[in-house]
Amino acid sequence: MPRIVETVVTTIDASGTPHIAPLGLIQDGDHWIIAPFRPSRTLDNLIANPYAVATHTGDVRVIAGCVTGRRDWPTVPADVVKGVRLKEAVSHWELEVAHVAEDPQRPRFHCRLVHQASHAVWSGYNRAEAAVLELAVLSTRLNMLPPEKIDAELKYLEIAISKTAGPRELEAWGWLMDRVTAFRSGNAEAARKK
Amino acid sequence: MPRIVETVVTTIDASGTPHIAPLGLIQDGDHWIIAPFRPSRTLDNLIANPYAVATHTGDVRVIAGCVTGRRDWPTVPADVVKGVRLKEAVSHWELEVAHVAEDPQRPRFHCRLVHQASHAVWSGYNRAEAAVLELAVLSTRLNMLPPEKIDAELKYLEIAISKTAGPRELEAWGWLMDRVTAFRSGNAEAARKK
Repeated sequence: MPRIVETVVTTIDASGTPHIAPLGLIQDGDHWIIAPFRPSRTLDNLIANPYAVATHTGDVRVIAGCVTGRRDWPTVPADVVKGVRLKEAVSHWELEVAHVAEDPQRPRFHCRLVHQASHAVWSGYNRAEAAVLELAVLSTRLNMLPPEKIDAELKYLEIAISKTAGPRELEAWGWLMDRVTAFRSGNAEAARKK
Repeated sequence: MPRIVETVVTTIDASGTPHIAPLGLIQDGDHWIIAPFRPSRTLDNLIANPYAVATHTGDVRVIAGCVTGRRDWPTVPADVVKGVRLKEAVSHWELEVAHVAEDPQRPRFHCRLVHQASHAVWSGYNRAEAAVLELAVLSTRLNMLPPEKIDAELKYLEIAISKTAGPRELEAWGWLMDRVTAFRSGNAEAARKK
């Protein structure tokens, strides 16, 4: 399997309106592949304007926020390509679509890295940031997993949260847990209706 | 609980010989606390020379390597303090001991951040890097955990490895798994001797 990095991808539509989406970029030699689902705004935007910006932020609230309907994060213009990056960034990559591999579910946009820049000193690994990222992934798959698997994963991830989180990670974790709780109470209601 | 970042701390002894150790730094307002166990070379070095350098590397082989006896990573002189940083670095912090809170097990060295610098563009989150870090922590606690808990955690962490690892993460994972396997076969022998 290729290496994948989890980042926040911004694309713009024909009118210049940005769309922010947390996405995994798949490494393919010198290229990075963006594989948005069909239908999605990232897909539409990449067709309208074949550039993307990947912001690497140390603030996991952006990722947890996008997953929980909080998409209004400040952006600034990209340096080179037609697009924007997140203002709050450790670093960012500017990508240009080189070619597209069509697929009925997930077309693959092979992108060239045309520019990159640092904006802050990266402060290293924080296990709680990683746990938030895992919960963000988990929170999009709740309806595909048995409840006991969800419980086991939450219990495991909570260890890193309780031991290493700062205020930003706790806030992000809280947003995602609200989603998990809402899903569970929805499930409980559905169960009672039977 | 305060925020903790996982980093690679280098200290030097009175003769200037560096010691490399993966350590969690505990945030305390403007200070970062290093809490080395007694006895340890990091502790001795911090007493001999009250400076430390924290290297933030994206290469988790350094962390997995230190935990599995591979400590020979290239260093270069620090910019400001008496010490060295890892050559392979996304960024690094230079720390000066401000005061020490004595403790029979783990004295706490409260450090001031006196300098920081970026050396490469951070390439964002990789779930496999985080999984290697978790396995590194787990691998130091094997004799404290029931085998079924170790199995469950390995199974969980392997998902991120199989889906998102590149060559560096796979190599680091392999080193740590060798340690887990050696521990288990040691256990098996001990079990057979009963």
